Amino acid sequence: MAETDAELVFIGHIETPYKVLEDCPRNVEPDGPVCRLVLAPGYEQGLLGLRPGRKVLVLYWLREADRTKLRQSPSHIGKTRGTFALRSPHRPNPIGAAAVEVEEISGNTVVVRGMDCLNGTPLLDIKPAM
Amino acid sequence: MAETDAELVFIGHIETPYKVLEDCPRNVEPDGPVCRLVLAPGYEQGLLGLRPGRKVLVLYWLREADRTKLRQSPSHIGKTRGTFALRSPHRPNPIGAAAVEVEEISGNTVVVRGMDCLNGTPLLDIKPAM
Repeated sequence: MAETDAELVFIGHIETPYKVLEDCPRNVEPDGPVCRLVLAPGYEQGLLGLRPGRKVLVLYWLREADRTKLRQSPSHIGKTRGTFALRSPHRPNPIGAAAVEVEEISGNTVVVRGMDCLNGTPLLDIKPAM
Repeated sequence: MAETDAELVFIGHIETPYKVLEDCPRNVEPDGPVCRLVLAPGYEQGLLGLRPGRKVLVLYWLREADRTKLRQSPSHIGKTRGTFALRSPHRPNPIGAAAVEVEEISGNTVVVRGMDCLNGTPLLDIKPAM
């Protein structure tokens, strides 16, 4: 339906307690369990200046998603909605976005809480939240 | 440095007043000029249920970015920082993220204000902001 033309690089992965989709919370939980953003070799130099207490926007790739869905009927809503009116992982570009607080930084790992994604989810970006 | 394996699809483009990078504001401006998120043919069905007044997270592709930079010294900071401690467009995955309010929806177009990107920037996603 549209031009396709940008390729993502996975800069690391996210460690969470969730091994199957059914276990993932529907959204980020500020008081949820500890999760780790683990950067691949080389990328840890991009953490210079990031500090605990800072709120960051984490972007990640929801690779289990169905990218063809433009209308969906989630059971918790009970109506058909357009994908762009939903936060469902099933979307043309399945990029998860979570605003979380940095708890700790150690080497190539950033500790946060309450991510909503599967263990092993590819990491795309970390940037200060607005 | 890392596995590369996800491809993005451009679902439309963003109309802004900015024709050169020097004109773009550093960040989103809630009271900035009117901008338009224009969906490519077919994708407008994904807008069902989205309403004016809703705050959405818009994701877009900053194709002018230098994707190799992991440390930068922005003039407004005056120090060297890691890319993941900055909101600079120059990053391994140059995905812009803006939380803006929907002012109007008309056909395949969502009207918002104050986007910080160039006119013609490829659109990746629209989803309700948390």
